[in-house]
Amino acid sequence: MERPRHQGMAKNTYMRWRLPLVCLLWEVAMIVLFGVFVRFSPEADAHWEEEKRDMNLTSDMENDFYFRYPSFQDVHVMIFVGFGFLMTFLKRYGFGAVGFNFLLAAFGIQWALLMQGWFHSFKSGKILIGVENLINADFCVGSVCIAFGAILGKTSPIQLLVMTLFQVTLFAVNEYILLNLLHVKDAGGSMTIHTFGAYFGLTVTRILYRPNLEQSKDKQGSVYHSDLFAMIGTLYLWMYWPSFNSAISDHGDAQHRAAINTYCSLAACVLTTMAFSSMLQKKGKLDMVHIQNATLAGGVAVGTSAEMMLTPYGSLIVGFICGIVSTVGYVYLTPFLESRLHIQDTCGIHNLHAMPGLIGGIVGAITAAAATEDVYGKEGFIKAFDFTGEYKTRTPSVQGGFQAAGIVVSLLMAFAGGAIVGAILKLPVWGDAAAENCFEDDIYWEVPEDEESDAYHMHNPDKPASP
Amino acid sequence: MERPRHQGMAKNTYMRWRLPLVCLLWEVAMIVLFGVFVRFSPEADAHWEEEKRDMNLTSDMENDFYFRYPSFQDVHVMIFVGFGFLMTFLKRYGFGAVGFNFLLAAFGIQWALLMQGWFHSFKSGKILIGVENLINADFCVGSVCIAFGAILGKTSPIQLLVMTLFQVTLFAVNEYILLNLLHVKDAGGSMTIHTFGAYFGLTVTRILYRPNLEQSKDKQGSVYHSDLFAMIGTLYLWMYWPSFNSAISDHGDAQHRAAINTYCSLAACVLTTMAFSSMLQKKGKLDMVHIQNATLAGGVAVGTSAEMMLTPYGSLIVGFICGIVSTVGYVYLTPFLESRLHIQDTCGIHNLHAMPGLIGGIVGAITAAAATEDVYGKEGFIKAFDFTGEYKTRTPSVQGGFQAAGIVVSLLMAFAGGAIVGAILKLPVWGDAAAENCFEDDIYWEVPEDEESDAYHMHNPDKPASP
Amino acid sequence: MERPRHQGMAKNTYMRWRLPLVCLLWEVAMIVLFGVFVRFSPEADAHWEEEKRDMNLTSDMENDFYFRYPSFQDVHVMIFVGFGFLMTFLKRYGFGAVGFNFLLAAFGIQWALLMQGWFHSFKSGKILIGVENLINADFCVGSVCIAFGAILGKTSPIQLLVMTLFQVTLFAVNEYILLNLLHVKDAGGSMTIHTFGAYFGLTVTRILYRPNLEQSKDKQGSVYHSDLFAMIGTLYLWMYWPSFNSAISDHGDAQHRAAINTYCSLAACVLTTMAFSSMLQKKGKLDMVHIQNATLAGGVAVGTSAEMMLTPYGSLIVGFICGIVSTVGYVYLTPFLESRLHIQDTCGIHNLHAMPGLIGGIVGAITAAAATEDVYGKEGFIKAFDFTGEYKTRTPSVQGGFQAAGIVVSLLMAFAGGAIVGAILKLPVWGDAAAENCFEDDIYWEVPEDEESDAYHMHNPDKPASP
Repeated sequence: MERPRHQGMAKNTYMRWRLPLVCLLWEVAMIVLFGVFVRFSPEADAHWEEEKRDMNLTSDMENDFYFRYPSFQDVHVMIFVGFGFLMTFLKRYGFGAVGFNFLLAAFGIQWALLMQGWFHSFKSGKILIGVENLINADFCVGSVCIAFGAILGKTSPIQLLVMTLFQVTLFAVNEYILLNLLHVKDAGGSMTIHTFGAYFGLTVTRILYRPNLEQSKDKQGSVYHSDLFAMIGTLYLWMYWPSFNSAISDHGDAQHRAAINTYCSLAACVLTTMAFSSMLQKKGKLDMVHIQNATLAGGVAVGTSAEMMLTPYGSLIVGFICGIVSTVGYVYLTPFLESRLHIQDTCGIHNLHAMPGLIGGIVGAITAAAATEDVYGKEGFIKAFDFTGEYKTRTPSVQGGFQAAGIVVSLLMAFAGGAIVGAILKLPVWGDAAAENCFEDDIYWEVPEDEESDAYHMHNPDKPASP
Repeated sequence: MERPRHQGMAKNTYMRWRLPLVCLLWEVAMIVLFGVFVRFSPEADAHWEEEKRDMNLTSDMENDFYFRYPSFQDVHVMIFVGFGFLMTFLKRYGFGAVGFNFLLAAFGIQWALLMQGWFHSFKSGKILIGVENLINADFCVGSVCIAFGAILGKTSPIQLLVMTLFQVTLFAVNEYILLNLLHVKDAGGSMTIHTFGAYFGLTVTRILYRPNLEQSKDKQGSVYHSDLFAMIGTLYLWMYWPSFNSAISDHGDAQHRAAINTYCSLAACVLTTMAFSSMLQKKGKLDMVHIQNATLAGGVAVGTSAEMMLTPYGSLIVGFICGIVSTVGYVYLTPFLESRLHIQDTCGIHNLHAMPGLIGGIVGAITAAAATEDVYGKEGFIKAFDFTGEYKTRTPSVQGGFQAAGIVVSLLMAFAGGAIVGAILKLPVWGDAAAENCFEDDIYWEVPEDEESDAYHMHNPDKPASP
Repeated sequence: MERPRHQGMAKNTYMRWRLPLVCLLWEVAMIVLFGVFVRFSPEADAHWEEEKRDMNLTSDMENDFYFRYPSFQDVHVMIFVGFGFLMTFLKRYGFGAVGFNFLLAAFGIQWALLMQGWFHSFKSGKILIGVENLINADFCVGSVCIAFGAILGKTSPIQLLVMTLFQVTLFAVNEYILLNLLHVKDAGGSMTIHTFGAYFGLTVTRILYRPNLEQSKDKQGSVYHSDLFAMIGTLYLWMYWPSFNSAISDHGDAQHRAAINTYCSLAACVLTTMAFSSMLQKKGKLDMVHIQNATLAGGVAVGTSAEMMLTPYGSLIVGFICGIVSTVGYVYLTPFLESRLHIQDTCGIHNLHAMPGLIGGIVGAITAAAATEDVYGKEGFIKAFDFTGEYKTRTPSVQGGFQAAGIVVSLLMAFAGGAIVGAILKLPVWGDAAAENCFEDDIYWEVPEDEESDAYHMHNPDKPASP
């Protein structure tokens, strides 16, 4: 039974040949490129026994797998369940939220393994991958999931795959500039993941501005149970964020410290979010949108500095501020951005990722600039900022300057890249829906006939469930 | 649109200034106290390289982070998703269950880091925190989540924050008496977390007795999907409980053993819960309330003894008994407590935490008293009960006596503390709801207008969704 | 209030005495057998300090617990949340899906510890268990969860417990033949878990064929929110599958490699599933059934070969193929199996486990046969296939032959075992429901009165929620 309100569809959202074509083409490309380039790193290769001997390692425990795999799995959950379910808050877009996030992330991690591999793990013509590459691929895709949040409900799966292709590429370039050319520290990705991903997504949604979006306004809200599904996403992001920010830090104290700082920042963030959510609403009631999102800003904002000696109280302060900034953003800034700047930001990523990401970059720059040998210890100081080789003589204040430059580069890459990709996505060939059909799973998904109404009305046999 | 039934509200539940004030005040206090007191432990500090040399460690793997971080993350999930979702079974209190649990736990872990830090990690004027402190803070908050279960749906968020402040304080004192003064073993917290938390909560709910609670009786039940949300909480608690009971045990065999014992106890508990759930109901049908709760009693009841040589079959026996005790409690004891003793226990924590916690304390005392050098080995015996220093000459039977004393102390602390805190919470300034508005998110939360009914009725265009 | 459509029940589904009897009897048997046989392995025993000295180990980190516990927890989540929630897609069988899965798995892991223990961990009259035994027990139960998928909604809890008893027994025998007699590698269980479990379940459901099942056809579908609950199961299975396939591999490179291969295979599988889901449907829309299931086939299909040098691109190819095979199976094969072969496969395990399991066995045989010392290194080659002792002279091609023999043995065991167990389950004493009451929780569960309809209609005070 076709639902009547779809009869007015002006746009061709028929996916039958286009979506399979894109999926298969790109997967075949992945196989070919992996075949040519990707091999196991020494720690995942069967020659490991010899490697161990060469490196004088006495225990299999020294394999990087055991240092990072638990954190990898937590990050993996954040990308697929965290982001996926966070976006299920929309009443009729749960399939799209969790399903398209699944699709773009599954493609994105493959492409990210290649792109990041060419830049960072390329040896004698091969990309050698291990668990750290898997984490980095998940990180890279995280920035795409963030951008997805801005355009949620308004794009076709093909557009998402196209965006993923380009955004992963740009991410890898930006990451290379920051980490290798500017020698910037950003283990939790305040700049590379959040600032870049969010401003990229906001630029894309600006380009894809839909003037008639109020036609689907009734579907932009949540229902009771969809808000609970979204809380699954929120909590997994919140709980595992310490793993996110510590996953690729140096072994030992750096991973340990990053987890503690993130834990503290997130805890503080919850309290200020609750405070301002209640304060900014006339009736003083808490708003699920804030709880679902702004509570996470504290994790974003210590992404750069968590592995540094930010200290627990420093982390609390950052979380304190970001809960406020993010909640205020949801109340005042998101409506402003939509009405004045024509930026339609479905999930409010400006409040959750863009502003906290910028704050995170700045906090990182300050923390780096304020570093002293006294606080870090002589060896710890060099290890923390990798002041070796050609960077042997770099001072903390110079490092702080480069950190700040990293923010600017990430912003420029995001704006320029977002503009170009937005323009590409605007082409009328990708099968996006008309304004009145946005935020509606029925366009791209087989949605079960609502026999549920049958279940709910089974006590009323005289009231038919469907006409 | 204001819903008509709220017009009868007699109490002032307006949170706009009170809740933000409490949240901000307490978070500022946390920042100040963290600034004065909290620093990184040597294993999380950038001086770790020097520490490693001093301690003659050859590998970063020896950092406690790698011994405990995976368990920490599991415990973290139990506190926020486990307890949070377990309490979403109420049909219209899902936001409050998962949201208030989030709020109180986020505040509680900060305050617990301080309180437990002063007692256990205080060195030269500073609290030095590492991953074990994070676990202990989560544990401490676990006892607050338990108490929350008794008063679920009947208290304002401010009351919960006040309760958290006091309960965490008392928890830390009780824990100090047990672990340091009595030298009692309680790695999984049968006494410190479950017995204390549950009897504390039951005392509070007794003091806050609401004679007219039947006015909101229609909201005290579950609906189909809310029961499934609750099962998410149940399963995460059940699956990760081996991590909970082993998280702070000694490295090596103790952690290993604690996980195995807990795994066994929980498995047995499921079978007896199912058996008695069916047996105690005339129609022989299973009751979701039992499955959601009583299946977990086996984890509570090996909290003290899991790291000891309880043995797998000993664990099965404990789980076997607790599934029965807990299920029988739900069927017969909870109604009795409510009608005769005026203890309104929303989640039935008496059955899930109080009785199994007591059993856990007793099993721990017996297991300790029965310990022999033969079973533990000479070194293992000393290590398992920490019979060193001033406790060098303590015998197992004396240890068993002290374990039993620990139960009594925990009970006394719970009753006394619960009575005082209950009296404080009874003050008419905290904004709790009237009896007819209990178990209803609408009081403290922006609840989405039920456009869902629109979704369900979309086939009936002639039947309006809202009047 | 009894629902009218249950009045026609022809069969006796009354569980009150039968279910408790079975549960209690079997749990008592477990306690007795554990008491006689099960003890801690040296790494979980309090004598570990002496063991460490004897084995010349310098760090507690060398305890197998730290190599495998994080993976164990991931596997544990897959069994209880993964399989449990994957099966909640049915609109009115969520309690049964997650609850009966909980019951059978909790019993199954205990019996599996015994059965597998007798075969693999039996020393001087005792079964010595450690974390690897817990993983193997979960694995064994995984095969029962798979079989449960075929008969979901059509069997009583007693039938499930009886099936678990027999299937675990047969699993252990089959596993012993493969791993010990044929010396086959199958760390992720393509053959032992998936092929065996799926064909066993399919045979059982064939024997239990219900000719009038279309009477409950209206309940065989999903509703919007039940599909989202099922996605929780899907994603946890998908995300943690790298842990599943690497959990019991050798320490070091083998675990590392198995995780990477599985990650790659699963990523590719998502893309071809999406492609074919859209392509095989006239309207080109995606089908949740495919996304929930076929995306996982890539994990099944590298179960044997993931720890071998399959290489990342090899894994992509396997995932690519299995997404297609599995999706095509759902569209064409499942209806065919039902109408022609009378195999009623509720969850489509033939597409998710049977065919990909066979492919996995074949891929494993080929990968083993193609192994060379050049690719694995001299030591790595011996270690990977355990070519020591009496297998010192076995060549890769011979190993490939034995791997292939393992597939055949697993199939034979599944068909024979399934036929016998199916015949036992057909006895009219187990309390299964009539055809018109299948896929309905109300038979075995207390289902909340649908006050939900009250919640949805609260805006319509003039329309009563229940008659």
